[in-house]
Amino acid sequence: MEQVADPAVGISLDELQLAVRNHSMPLEALRHPLTPPWLHYLLIHYDIPTVDTTSWRLEIGGLVERPLSLSLEDLRARPAVDLTVTMECAGNGRARLDPRPVSMPWLGEAVGTARWTGVPLRELLDDAGALPEAIEAVFTGLDRGVEGGVAQQYERSQRLDEPALEHAVLAYAMNGAPLLPQHGFPLRLVVPGWYGMTSVKWLERITLVDRPFDGYQQATGYRFKRDEDDPGVPVTRMLPRALLVPPGVPDFHTRERTLGPGPHLLEGRAWSGHGEIERVEVSGDDGKNWFGAELEDDVGSRWAWRRWTAEWDPMACGRFVVCCRATDSAGNVQPLEPVWNVGGYANNAVQRVVVTVAAG
Amino acid sequence: MEQVADPAVGISLDELQLAVRNHSMPLEALRHPLTPPWLHYLLIHYDIPTVDTTSWRLEIGGLVERPLSLSLEDLRARPAVDLTVTMECAGNGRARLDPRPVSMPWLGEAVGTARWTGVPLRELLDDAGALPEAIEAVFTGLDRGVEGGVAQQYERSQRLDEPALEHAVLAYAMNGAPLLPQHGFPLRLVVPGWYGMTSVKWLERITLVDRPFDGYQQATGYRFKRDEDDPGVPVTRMLPRALLVPPGVPDFHTRERTLGPGPHLLEGRAWSGHGEIERVEVSGDDGKNWFGAELEDDVGSRWAWRRWTAEWDPMACGRFVVCCRATDSAGNVQPLEPVWNVGGYANNAVQRVVVTVAAG
Repeated sequence: MEQVADPAVGISLDELQLAVRNHSMPLEALRHPLTPPWLHYLLIHYDIPTVDTTSWRLEIGGLVERPLSLSLEDLRARPAVDLTVTMECAGNGRARLDPRPVSMPWLGEAVGTARWTGVPLRELLDDAGALPEAIEAVFTGLDRGVEGGVAQQYERSQRLDEPALEHAVLAYAMNGAPLLPQHGFPLRLVVPGWYGMTSVKWLERITLVDRPFDGYQQATGYRFKRDEDDPGVPVTRMLPRALLVPPGVPDFHTRERTLGPGPHLLEGRAWSGHGEIERVEVSGDDGKNWFGAELEDDVGSRWAWRRWTAEWDPMACGRFVVCCRATDSAGNVQPLEPVWNVGGYANNAVQRVVVTVAAG
Repeated sequence: MEQVADPAVGISLDELQLAVRNHSMPLEALRHPLTPPWLHYLLIHYDIPTVDTTSWRLEIGGLVERPLSLSLEDLRARPAVDLTVTMECAGNGRARLDPRPVSMPWLGEAVGTARWTGVPLRELLDDAGALPEAIEAVFTGLDRGVEGGVAQQYERSQRLDEPALEHAVLAYAMNGAPLLPQHGFPLRLVVPGWYGMTSVKWLERITLVDRPFDGYQQATGYRFKRDEDDPGVPVTRMLPRALLVPPGVPDFHTRERTLGPGPHLLEGRAWSGHGEIERVEVSGDDGKNWFGAELEDDVGSRWAWRRWTAEWDPMACGRFVVCCRATDSAGNVQPLEPVWNVGGYANNAVQRVVVTVAAG
């Protein structure tokens, strides 16, 4: 089902179709604590559904004592919570793997941070009353298509004892405004700390079940596999990553940067789904030497990225490769080189930005 | 300067960097008469500038009697006009050329329609008073970068006797809301009927000059050239194009569509910068046989696309290639095969959508 491309062959037209539909966050938008919704990364498996909220309902059923059917007004009438979350696509960095797994060819910028407003998932599950035999909740979106030969609505599950579910929100607003259609209008799940595939958009139904969900997006997709025969292990929480606002100005075609003599104040953001960001380091020589960055917390959420700054003085004109890397409180450090897997998930190898320092 | 890629080699990482930053309009958004601004196509040569409107001014100078310096409030205080325009990137369809010119690899969906609100360009030029020797206006954006080895701000000119300038607007609103940063906040030029490169974003300055502007985006870029040595002719107005909302549901990877037995009501939109759309035809057999579509005008602007519908009955299960093509009142018809040029501009060859009709 999953394919890899001969590295001598570039991106195919099929991959390009995904790349021009979906989009990453332009790196200059790292300056914003909250990403403007229209610059937040997007991965849409099928088409963007058009939803009529006069007939739309969220159904909560399966192994529950009291099935619920809720309108958008019902959800808005409940006490609301805010959850500010950095969310990243599980395939971020895929196009830098060699050989390259064939899917959406992300380079490393498939991320964004938003303040989601909605109803705590746990409260709704408590209202419905999970039966003792229920072990997972299956979240079903309205988006429909075919994947791996299987006709499906997009569906993912979470174990009911997953700690992140205590913080998960069914969100109807993003940065204070109703969800945009491409971000899941009218309602989406947001599970903090996890890669984005689990935060199901255009939510239609939550079904409690007594066995592990074996739908395509759970049992086939989004698993770390060494090879095609490996059943693999699930992709879950985000590995640490730091990104840099590329300094200076870009070349249109290569995106390589030109800037004047230093010192330069570099800035960026870093996040992890496994713990707090403890350290960000910067290199001006493609990772040979590293120095520490200052960490700030201008967002104020344990689930969101932290801003970092570092003064860098190239001390000469010429071509430099600037890198940054993050370490989290769980001891995860970004690798210099990618770690390969069949689906191309979670490649958090350090970002490399090529800059030319030229006399003013 | 301009390069073409060996067709055996797919899209390069440099092209992919452009493809994941910029984005086309998802084809399902063809259902909207006005494109939601966050789904409208985007091509950004350099970085998105951040503009402080307390200090920002539009300067109008050069060969004028009375140079003007206008704040956003000054512009908003003037009588406003609306201009509803379909805008398409000049490079739309480039990635389907063979060999493929190396730049932003658009497939065919780099389009959108918006209602722009602002000040008529002609009124401001009249207030400034063009001197008799002025023949062109140069529009300078705040976006800076390097292209073809030339450090530059994005700049394009228009001849003062260009008929479309009579309708051009300096726009501060899009679909009734302030411009989004990626669409040129706080002010952009909108020239109806032309490809998007002339509608300069993040406008800073208009300069009247007495000779043809020879900046990079005018004299090097955006010209039809047969080969590298050809000085070429300028890219100007949009050739006709019809696009189809892909019917049924997509395969995630290939975007091929699956749908049930017919008849199916196909729908789409068509536009041209050279005249009214006079005819849209549809084919269910990859362009061998064509039948007429019904044209509507649900937008109501001579500069905007027209909706079309056509009933299609495949009469059998199997694989079909559905196409559509537009003819405008100037006699331009979309070709079945691309017309090649060095920069990969204005490839308006007909769209082909692969669909599988399967028994329900």
